[in-house]
This record gives sequence, C-alpha cells and structure tokens, in this order.
Amino acid sequence: MDSIIYLDHAATSWPKPPGVLEAMQITMEQSAANPGRGSHTMAVKASRVLFETRLQLSKLFHIRNANDIAFTPHTTMALNMAIKGLLKEGDHVVATMVEHNSVRRPLEYLKRTLGITVDYVKVNDKGELNLKDVEMALKQPTSLVVCNHSSNLLGSILPVEEIGRLAHHHGAVLLVDAAQSAGILDIDVERMNIDLLAFPGHKGLLGPQGTGGLYIAPHMDLDPLLHGGTGSQSEEKEQPSVRPDRYEAGTPNTAGIAGLRAGVEKVIELTPKWIYTHEWNLTQRLLEGLEPITGISLLGPDKGMPRTGIVSFVVDNHDSSEIAFRLDREFGIAVRAGLHCTPLAHYAVHTEQSGAVRASVGVNTTEVEVDSLIRAMERIM
Amino acid sequence: MDSIIYLDHAATSWPKPPGVLEAMQITMEQSAANPGRGSHTMAVKASRVLFETRLQLSKLFHIRNANDIAFTPHTTMALNMAIKGLLKEGDHVVATMVEHNSVRRPLEYLKRTLGITVDYVKVNDKGELNLKDVEMALKQPTSLVVCNHSSNLLGSILPVEEIGRLAHHHGAVLLVDAAQSAGILDIDVERMNIDLLAFPGHKGLLGPQGTGGLYIAPHMDLDPLLHGGTGSQSEEKEQPSVRPDRYEAGTPNTAGIAGLRAGVEKVIELTPKWIYTHEWNLTQRLLEGLEPITGISLLGPDKGMPRTGIVSFVVDNHDSSEIAFRLDREFGIAVRAGLHCTPLAHYAVHTEQSGAVRASVGVNTTEVEVDSLIRAMERIM
Repeated sequence: MDSIIYLDHAATSWPKPPGVLEAMQITMEQSAANPGRGSHTMAVKASRVLFETRLQLSKLFHIRNANDIAFTPHTTMALNMAIKGLLKEGDHVVATMVEHNSVRRPLEYLKRTLGITVDYVKVNDKGELNLKDVEMALKQPTSLVVCNHSSNLLGSILPVEEIGRLAHHHGAVLLVDAAQSAGILDIDVERMNIDLLAFPGHKGLLGPQGTGGLYIAPHMDLDPLLHGGTGSQSEEKEQPSVRPDRYEAGTPNTAGIAGLRAGVEKVIELTPKWIYTHEWNLTQRLLEGLEPITGISLLGPDKGMPRTGIVSFVVDNHDSSEIAFRLDREFGIAVRAGLHCTPLAHYAVHTEQSGAVRASVGVNTTEVEVDSLIRAMERIM
Repeated sequence: MDSIIYLDHAATSWPKPPGVLEAMQITMEQSAANPGRGSHTMAVKASRVLFETRLQLSKLFHIRNANDIAFTPHTTMALNMAIKGLLKEGDHVVATMVEHNSVRRPLEYLKRTLGITVDYVKVNDKGELNLKDVEMALKQPTSLVVCNHSSNLLGSILPVEEIGRLAHHHGAVLLVDAAQSAGILDIDVERMNIDLLAFPGHKGLLGPQGTGGLYIAPHMDLDPLLHGGTGSQSEEKEQPSVRPDRYEAGTPNTAGIAGLRAGVEKVIELTPKWIYTHEWNLTQRLLEGLEPITGISLLGPDKGMPRTGIVSFVVDNHDSSEIAFRLDREFGIAVRAGLHCTPLAHYAVHTEQSGAVRASVGVNTTEVEVDSLIRAMERIM
C-alpha cells in the first residue's frame, strides 16, 4: 500500500486527515448513542456531534441557520431530495450538459413520470458555459435551474452566482451540485444566489464516505423524500415541520458525521483558497507535462484558466480502461477511466465512444506524484 | 463515561464489538477508495469490502444471492424504498398497530398522494397479534402486507412466517421491518415467506450507525427511490437493471459497511439463538424485579412469554421523561422515554398520554446492570 499514488480524489479523497479517524473513534467509544432519540447523557452528546458539524458547515458555506442543513448519506441523496421534493407535474427545468447522472437520472425519471421538461444547456468543448444560453433556456417559464459547480469530467467551473441571478430574475430556484467544489471553491450561499446546495462529505470536505448534506434556504419547502421516525413529534402522521428533523428521518451516521466535522475543520484551517491554489498548480503542472506527449488529447479548460483538480485525457487508439489498468498495475497510480457518470459531458467534448482517463488531485497530492503520472504516460506512449 | 449503564440497545447497540472499529479503521486506511467507480487496486478492494459484507448478511438471513441485498444508510431508507417502490395508485395495504413511524409515515404519505388504503391490524394489550385479524384484513384485494418483526415499544414478536403464508395465499407481498429482530431472532427469508426485509446495521447486527439494508427477493422489482450514478452503465438515462447497482445510487459508506461485516461476523459467531436467550433471560430478570414495585405497570408480553430485549413500563403519576431523566442523572442509567416513534402501539396499550420508559438490553448487558435499574426504580418509587 505504501507505494500507491492516489490520483482519484474526484471520486473520494484519500487518505483523510488523521483527525477524521480519531473523531470517529472517539465518537464510537463515547457518544454513539442515537441522537435525538432520548434525553440521556450519551444521546445528548450524540446530538451535539451533529450540531457541531452543522455549525462548521454553516461557517464554511456562510449559512445563517445551521438547522437549514440536512445530513444525507451522499450527494446523490441530497440531489434526489431537492429535485423530487421540489418539482411538480409539467414543470420546466434548466440544467447543463455537464450534469452528473445524480442530476440527470432524477430529471429523466421525472420527465417520464411527471411530464416535466428539461433543457440541458450546452457547454463548449472545454466544458465552459455561455450565460446567454442559460438566458435563452429561461425564456420558457422555469421552476428550477440546476447546475454542477464544477464538471467531474472536465474540471471546468460554472458561473454559479450569475446563473443564480438569472434564475432568480426569471422566478426560478437555483440548485447547485457541489460534488466537486465543496471545500475547494469558495461557496457563499447568499451571495451566490443558491437556494439549494447539495454537497458530499467524503470528497473536498475530507470526511468519511457515508456523509453529505443538503442546504435548504429558509424560504424553501421541499416535500420530504423520506418519511419515518425523527424522534420528535412522534404522534404526528406527517413528517414534522421543524428543521432539520423534517428532512432527516432515520438514524444518522453519528460517527461519520463526527469525522466530517474534523474534515471540515481541516478545510477551514487550510482555507478553500489555499486548497484551490494548491490543486490548480498541480493541474497546471500535469497539463504542461502531458501536453507534449504525442497521442494524448487533454480535455477541459485551457492551461492558465480556472479549473478544479481534475485533468482528463483521451489516448489515441487506446481505450481509457486499458490506460487506467496499466497505470495501476505497472506504476501503482490510481486514476479512473470510463464515462464517469456524466455521459452528456462526453457528448459535449466528443469522447462518448472512447471515455476518458481522469486524474484528480487532492489536498495532499504532491508534485512528485504528478510527475510520476507524467513519466508513466511517457513510458506507456 | 466508565460508569454508564447503557440500556438503550433498541435505539442503537453500544458499545460495538472491538472488531467493528478496527475494521473501519483498516478500511479507511487501506481500502477507502470509491467502490465500483474505477478499476484501480484500491477501488477493487473497496468493492470487495461491500461484497464480503453482503456475503455475511446472506449467510445470516439465508439469502441465496448476495446481490439481492442493497445497502442503505438506515432501516428507514430501506422501508421507504420498499413501500414507495412497490405501491401504486389505489393499492390496499395490511399493516399492524405496532408499526414504527418509518412504516406508518410512508403509508400515510401514500394514502394522501396515491390514494392507497391501509388496514392497521390491531394487537392485544400485550402487543400480540391474532392471525384471524390479518386474514380478515386480507379479504380485500391486497398488494402488500408489512409487519414489524418485533415491536420497538413492547418487545412482542409477530408470527412473520404465518403472516407471510397468509399474504402469499392472498396474492400479496410480505415486507418485514426487522429493526428490532435482525441479529436477535432467526431470520430465514425463504422459509419465512419474506419478499422484502428491511434491517438496520447498527442495532442487533452490532455495526456502526449509517448502515442498513434491504433484501429484495429475486422475483420482486421495485421502482428505485434514488436515481443517480452507480459507476455502471453510465450512458443510460435510467437506473441500471443489474443488482445491487439498481438500488444503490451514490457512494456507499464503505468504512461503515466494513464495520457492519465485523458486527455480523460477531453475531454469526455467537448465534442469534444465544443472543436471544441471553437477552430474554435479562428481560425476565427485569420483569421479576420491577413487577413488585408499587406504581409501575409493565407493558408487553407476560413473564415467560417470548419477547426481544425490550421492557417498557409506565409509572403512576410520573411522566416517562421525568423517570428517564432521573435514571440518567442520579443513577447513570441510559433508557429512553416518550412515544418511541410508534404512536399506534401506544393506543393499543393505552399509554398514548403517558408515553413509556423503555429499557432495552443488548448482547453485552449484564445481570448486574439490570439489577441496578431495578434498585434505581425502587429508590425512585
């Protein structure tokens, strides 16, 4: 294991900061009663774990009321809660071509079952979006604009604040999929006009898998996706209206959420600005190193342009899976191949047949590791 | 913390066997890539963690194909997946009065939105059910019978196998809520006529919070509750049909699931039979000790009758919360008070006003701990 070069941070960050496992361990040993389901000392301690994590997340995303954050097991759940909890029969939605399947599939499902209509706004072959195209799509009365903050294939960054302004101007709500941006790009929900923010705990926030969340602005009311016990207002047939209970039926992942707190604290300590710059420098180094290699085509924004820590590429006459396999077995380098759950983005950049090799860096990635990938690709080619 | 007497195992078991935290730690350190989202060595290791846990669960529940188990973050999610994935407009459902809100609230939601009808079959004042009442309710064409294997308020055990036989005889499907029974009562899905089995990872299976699952019999097809990425068939607009992917959109809780494996292994080693007997002996000791105390009314099955590790009671002229609070602060004993997310069961035993104090024992509870509760109640009264 010692020699692994892990360049798959866009799938999940690894390893986590040491404090994460420690927080999980302490919680399992001392506070892992069922939070909100009892008033005994340890149940109260468990509730406090959740509350403290909500506070740290609020600090990071500039959220006024921590109870507007609902914990979820992953971003997919948060996106399903937002999309299915909001849309009604016949609604129109504006999305983009860089959406992940966790947005596209719920939308396609509601097209089929509720007769909603969806415009997937095109992006250029760098994964960049033109606001004029969003405005065009918004000519039709629209309930929801949903956009990926940063493409999980291309690393391109979407102008969320401006998209939100357009959405609000046209009376639509903005849902942001922060799967690749939470902890890496600055997120201020009010300034950026975000009504709903879905985020993972286990990627840029450096927490464990099994965590994530949905911010629901105070003026929003979603029909809950899950119905069940909350430990509050047990006598009611309906989900309680109080937050976060309304959106958190079922026993939460207390130890995981404690780990998430430690991850978020690390992010706040380092600052997203520092993390972004660190990752951007590494992507630029990677782009420079891979560009001269004959047979490699780089995807995403040009060198020097903003991007998150993702560098995807296509290799002439080689399947992406083959390259990823060789990088793993011959060089101990972990990257991902294939379609990355985002088929429309591949159409946008014409890689739907080949798939792509995706290398993604993280907070603990080093220049030496990036250079190893460059040298490995030189050897392979 | 050393002196805590934890009698809240029905909410979540604590502490976990030492192997659980160890398995989580090893997984976080060595295998916590994103399972199913890549073919690199660590992603394959992560997939193996999930597969091995599925195998252990299959062994415990006598499930032929491990891929018929979908992991969920909790039982509530599993129950929502089953109920909402199965029922169609106007369907009739037979449930019981001991259902938890994680069954009742989804059903009430579908009454409101899909016009389904529900018969909550009554139980007697011990929480026991008469099969004749189930048969009566089944006279109406019925799609689904859902029943709690063991009441989380009363500890009474429902005759699942016979209920399943009746359900099948009338062309209905059987969904069992094993929140209080998984790991404690023998469960054999085929012999017991169970088509859908929802279970928690963090109670009788001794795993961490954030884990649970749904067994979906091979002949069943549920409309998925979540739509999103699975790492497979990314190009499709719909959820893939292959199991378990169809029911597992989103990144799973890999480390938590590793912990669950360790918990299930412990259960298999001890055997549910031993665990049940251990817990039953403790409940009988508790019943004997509490019975003579004036002012305490015991709920649930009579002494000597089958029950899971739950003993609930009402105290004359005292709110259940007050008793629980005093047990915690004065005696360091953790129990739960209130309605326990199961209001109908309280109606059945006429405790809807008072709520109840619930003591619940676990695999590591000792006679000394049980005796401490008895002595504390003697002191309080």
